Amino acid sequence: MSKTTIPYKIYLSECEMPKQWYNVRADMKHKPAPLLNPGTLQPMTAEELSGVFCTELVKQELDDTTPYIDIPEEIIKFYKMYRPSPLVRAYCLEERLKTPAKIYYKFEGNNTSGSHKLNSAIAQAYYAKQQGLKGVTTETGAGQWGTALSMACSYFDLDCKVYMVKVSYEQKPFRREVMRTYGAVVTPSPSETTEVGRRILAEHPGTTGSLGCAISEAVEAAVSAEGYRYVLGSVLNQVLLHQSVIGLETKAALDKYGIVPDMIIGCAGGGSNLGGLISPFMGEKLRGERDYQFIAVEPASCPSFTRGKFAYDFCDTGKVCPLAKMYTLGSGFIPSANHAGGLRYHGMSSTLSQLYADGLMEARTAEQTSVFEAAEQFARVEGILPAPESSHAIRVAIDEALKCKETGEEKTIVFGLTGTGYFDMVAYEKYNNGEMSDYIPTDEDLQPGFDSLPKL
Amino acid sequence: MSKTTIPYKIYLSECEMPKQWYNVRADMKHKPAPLLNPGTLQPMTAEELSGVFCTELVKQELDDTTPYIDIPEEIIKFYKMYRPSPLVRAYCLEERLKTPAKIYYKFEGNNTSGSHKLNSAIAQAYYAKQQGLKGVTTETGAGQWGTALSMACSYFDLDCKVYMVKVSYEQKPFRREVMRTYGAVVTPSPSETTEVGRRILAEHPGTTGSLGCAISEAVEAAVSAEGYRYVLGSVLNQVLLHQSVIGLETKAALDKYGIVPDMIIGCAGGGSNLGGLISPFMGEKLRGERDYQFIAVEPASCPSFTRGKFAYDFCDTGKVCPLAKMYTLGSGFIPSANHAGGLRYHGMSSTLSQLYADGLMEARTAEQTSVFEAAEQFARVEGILPAPESSHAIRVAIDEALKCKETGEEKTIVFGLTGTGYFDMVAYEKYNNGEMSDYIPTDEDLQPGFDSLPKL
Repeated sequence: MSKTTIPYKIYLSECEMPKQWYNVRADMKHKPAPLLNPGTLQPMTAEELSGVFCTELVKQELDDTTPYIDIPEEIIKFYKMYRPSPLVRAYCLEERLKTPAKIYYKFEGNNTSGSHKLNSAIAQAYYAKQQGLKGVTTETGAGQWGTALSMACSYFDLDCKVYMVKVSYEQKPFRREVMRTYGAVVTPSPSETTEVGRRILAEHPGTTGSLGCAISEAVEAAVSAEGYRYVLGSVLNQVLLHQSVIGLETKAALDKYGIVPDMIIGCAGGGSNLGGLISPFMGEKLRGERDYQFIAVEPASCPSFTRGKFAYDFCDTGKVCPLAKMYTLGSGFIPSANHAGGLRYHGMSSTLSQLYADGLMEARTAEQTSVFEAAEQFARVEGILPAPESSHAIRVAIDEALKCKETGEEKTIVFGLTGTGYFDMVAYEKYNNGEMSDYIPTDEDLQPGFDSLPKL
Repeated sequence: MSKTTIPYKIYLSECEMPKQWYNVRADMKHKPAPLLNPGTLQPMTAEELSGVFCTELVKQELDDTTPYIDIPEEIIKFYKMYRPSPLVRAYCLEERLKTPAKIYYKFEGNNTSGSHKLNSAIAQAYYAKQQGLKGVTTETGAGQWGTALSMACSYFDLDCKVYMVKVSYEQKPFRREVMRTYGAVVTPSPSETTEVGRRILAEHPGTTGSLGCAISEAVEAAVSAEGYRYVLGSVLNQVLLHQSVIGLETKAALDKYGIVPDMIIGCAGGGSNLGGLISPFMGEKLRGERDYQFIAVEPASCPSFTRGKFAYDFCDTGKVCPLAKMYTLGSGFIPSANHAGGLRYHGMSSTLSQLYADGLMEARTAEQTSVFEAAEQFARVEGILPAPESSHAIRVAIDEALKCKETGEEKTIVFGLTGTGYFDMVAYEKYNNGEMSDYIPTDEDLQPGFDSLPKL
């Protein structure tokens, strides 16, 4: 199909939007390892999990055989407010790079939460409402997930308590106000409001916090209050399931124009975007229908895929959560304070970890100055100010497009542009002022995290 | 046509995008009064104007007879990166309001500048580039225009010098960083870098600045440097021409589904969005083809349409610019520091002023707490955090929808949602904390501004 017939932005019509989520685990030969009860070290049962999560979400968490799960009507209705998201052909970027590669990005930032997180937030809030709960608790790092959940809870009139990693709380005061505008209560973590928070503050006075620590607080806040459950924006199987809407839309848009990607690139923190984006394509690969190259990109300063261990670990710092088998830097790992690019979680989705262990996908790291360089280059030609997280994917997409320029290959590259950087201007300012530096942890730097791994 | 057949978001396809701008002046019986030379008080000639503006833009500024003007290919290409913008059916808002009214909004915030301003910025940068200029200078208030122009200049490799109203510069440091990310040089106004800035600082030490003052500085910076011209984001005829793309897309989207609006509502600062949105509909009204109700909404604290005088006035505080005939509060008017909602300009587009004087449109004021109340209500159900400016239109759209609820009328309401509020969280915080107050100037408060009007 000739260049001119492919528009800058491919939008699906409403009737082309997915009606079902796709559960990639159903097609995996090696299923992701189950969550373990931290007390008994036995696989968590549905009953045990339902003290923490909504019942329907527990069902989704444990279901590794059903390939397609209906999206409830109420959620489809909400999706229609900000979806389908555009699949954009990066004509201007291609032109600047003078590359024969064809670059597409699935842009998930055109909603107030500024990222893809809303796709799962609305689903989790919906099931909480269905179950007659009063509210939910959660953690947030950069604030995208907390904002998304606040929006979703406000839509369904649910209480929303957000524990926000302290460093982000301080660097991103405006994020807090967006959440408050949607009615959420936001607490910097670690805080004095929970037992685990008080313990962590006593052990590490002056800590800037971590996602793992905020998770512990949010879980405690949920289980110690009547009518509350905990919700999580990444890592979990249920989240990847909801996020499959990204990949399903991407695939439908590509299919519409007969485009077959050679490689699909996504940034990876806990894996929610990457897992969602690649799911249906990975399904084809798992079923032997078609091969694709999948590339996860993570920060050099938080390299769970590339330098972590594939082991059972706690999902949180306070060790109150179930254990998950995943690529991990250890629940005690806290990224360098110098790190400004998000994707700070110590572990990685069990599903993606299994796929990576099975050699079905690759992973690369990127250093933050080169990530912001790519962000700026992209912003100037494509007109979107990307989130630092998303810019990890941009970095590798540009690198791959430049390789094509050398080899002359006309590869089709698809990457996930997960969100916008409007609330990351402190980091951009640092970059603009030439004050940003890189940090690659030494093996010794990583050792304390590995020492925190449970001995099973 | 039944409700179910109209999607939440109506997107035009690329081939349905406008290829020409519409010049509403061509259909006006009473043409807007010409700009006057501040020295001679005679209409500005093309030659005189071309010292300040690009030659092609001067032509557009003065042309009040050509109804359609081709959009250059390069601009259409840029438009395709972020346009067409969606026309959204506010199903969720309608449901919450329990109104029989049908509410649509044209959402111009899905681009990094966060507003419709990019539509004219890219056009003005294009013509500057065509003319072989080195760069352009401008002023910005809330920062939307400055951001838009920075993006446009970066795309065409033009220098961009932005004078930013000091109060916004201080309240919105992140805006400055977005502009810097796009390579612009941003100076808080009034500044010591221009003669007029120094004079204003001497006369009003401690002033928080005004758009009128920043304009003076930007004009001086342009005319005193080789290869620079001044560009403006609102008020001018050329800007309304470029912004007609909003109205043309809106009309095409409505026509596609056979929808005829009863009323069209837009916020009004200098008039760029409102003028652009209503242009093609106003054209129909002017040609006697169809009648619509047009409503301009302005802040109660900066009421140029509703309480200003229709007179020749300076466009800037420093009185270096041509005089325009418009509804004005006087170039000496500076809104109360308490005012957080944007739309701070003392005057109003000459074109809109003439249409208002001829009774072809209405104007209303809104107080800022009620504007933020509408903003929050909208954000919670429609999922978009609106700019305070845009929220003036939301306020009146909600008011009108509630009237329909009382009368049972099924009116079709279209309003312009000009942008997003991500950089307005200081104001939202004030509102969230219950610290926002209203301010309606007394006649005495307005008198100094009127005293600054030139005696012709």
